[in-house]
Amino acid sequence: MRCGVDIGGTNTMIGLVDPNGKVIDYDCLKTGKYELAFDLVVTIAYSILRMAKVNQTKIESIGIGCPNINPETGIVERAANLKFKGPVSLLTEFRRYFPETPLFFENDARAAAWGEAVYGSAKGLKDFIVVTLGTGLGCGIMADGKLMSGSRGMAGELGHVICFPEGRECGCGRQGCLEQYVAANGIYRTYTELCQQLKQVPKAGDYRSLSILAKAGDSIAIDTYQRTGKILGTALANMACCYDPSHIFIFGGVAQAGEVLMEPTRQAFEKNLLFCYKNHIKLELSGLMATSKNAGILGAAALANMQ
Amino acid sequence: MRCGVDIGGTNTMIGLVDPNGKVIDYDCLKTGKYELAFDLVVTIAYSILRMAKVNQTKIESIGIGCPNINPETGIVERAANLKFKGPVSLLTEFRRYFPETPLFFENDARAAAWGEAVYGSAKGLKDFIVVTLGTGLGCGIMADGKLMSGSRGMAGELGHVICFPEGRECGCGRQGCLEQYVAANGIYRTYTELCQQLKQVPKAGDYRSLSILAKAGDSIAIDTYQRTGKILGTALANMACCYDPSHIFIFGGVAQAGEVLMEPTRQAFEKNLLFCYKNHIKLELSGLMATSKNAGILGAAALANMQ
Repeated sequence: MRCGVDIGGTNTMIGLVDPNGKVIDYDCLKTGKYELAFDLVVTIAYSILRMAKVNQTKIESIGIGCPNINPETGIVERAANLKFKGPVSLLTEFRRYFPETPLFFENDARAAAWGEAVYGSAKGLKDFIVVTLGTGLGCGIMADGKLMSGSRGMAGELGHVICFPEGRECGCGRQGCLEQYVAANGIYRTYTELCQQLKQVPKAGDYRSLSILAKAGDSIAIDTYQRTGKILGTALANMACCYDPSHIFIFGGVAQAGEVLMEPTRQAFEKNLLFCYKNHIKLELSGLMATSKNAGILGAAALANMQ
Repeated sequence: MRCGVDIGGTNTMIGLVDPNGKVIDYDCLKTGKYELAFDLVVTIAYSILRMAKVNQTKIESIGIGCPNINPETGIVERAANLKFKGPVSLLTEFRRYFPETPLFFENDARAAAWGEAVYGSAKGLKDFIVVTLGTGLGCGIMADGKLMSGSRGMAGELGHVICFPEGRECGCGRQGCLEQYVAANGIYRTYTELCQQLKQVPKAGDYRSLSILAKAGDSIAIDTYQRTGKILGTALANMACCYDPSHIFIFGGVAQAGEVLMEPTRQAFEKNLLFCYKNHIKLELSGLMATSKNAGILGAAALANMQ
């Protein structure tokens, strides 16, 4: 059976995927607990070996999605949301435990696009974007049926498009990057700023409880998503000019907020779309979202299709 | 011999290109004089037939670069900078005069990227961008050796990326589009606004004389290019995140201003570039610029290589 490993800024998800794209077993680790890649990988490896044993299956391939990884060398470097800043070779680390299993590495956000194509709503589509909103913002760009790489595998770093030149400071050392407004931490910051302006004590203590508050109808939480959606929708309208996709899929932990985020995003998107794209681009939630936590696992497992 | 036709917002250039990429004869028409595509094409056709006769050569192929054209159907629609708003089929118009000659159509800015690859500085490069700055701003995106199309041939409409949400009105009906600041009319507008602020009578009556003034050292003209370069360089740094190119080439009438534009553009570009792209992307003038007026002709003629 295939194995998918999704190393994210907050959680690392590990799962077994059957040939029908069903996650039959999975584990979840807190990525932030591991200061060294060595420690994270040994824990992942034990998890995979345990699952293989329990489910009485052989591991055919392991796909690993990870921020800032070079797909060809398996080396991670300067990932803003990981504790190990690298450079560190995940290929070497995984090879210790899996000397002969085919290994596939890809930027986590790009793996999500592959997952959408193989297991999700993008089957048969040739030009689409998957925007992953989690701790950060990442993108996978499918162009004419191929995952766009650019000259050094760094195409689609849209979390770091500068939207507000004098805006919020970003972990990348610059100001006003998109992900500082529309990824989890950015949204939560918008919320606390709003509470401060309104002289209210924040009811939500973190991003997760904020999304629950918004769904429950809390007005400041809803206002937060309205503001977020306006920025996100405008940015997506600009992305339309860049890539002319037929579909844009929103994916990741933040997207689980659902319509409270999607409705204002869609409004701003349609409002700011250049005339020639109007009514031609579908903006929707990822088809993998129904499987919630397991979606990243599917993206990683789908990497075996890349060959 | 190949023929290249570059239909721009201001000028239409028609030329014969020899196998070494040399323009051996050319004509220039004022595009704005022609209200109908029919009238423009008949004039172009006579020009081509005249050149073929005078130079005693056969026309092997005609490549036509034109704003907002569908490369497959040859239909032009809603081109903001052309008088004929269409839809009008240039294929039908050209076929009247050239029933058997192979005809190639492409968006003028995308043709420029092809010209750079075939006749310019991008020979052998697989991931690069050509930004054409003229009456408007257009882009050709070469990704993994293929001209990026998107789902409907509209990828790379970067002139209409919104940079200033409450900014200048654009012909597209929205506000703050990049081309309103860094294409010819936008730059001239920045100049007149600056003159007004400083209570000075503008010395330059149009964009062309503005670039001459700047080269001659006029301080308001130079300041205009400094402001333009800052906006352009920041936008190009964002494009780097989108496509991860190895090179960005600046092309078109506005680029003929040379270093007075390029120097502040390069500064803002390097300053705003995400760390992982720093020192990896070359920003330079198009290699076709040496041929000045004929560069668009070369791009159009190069379209015959697309097959």
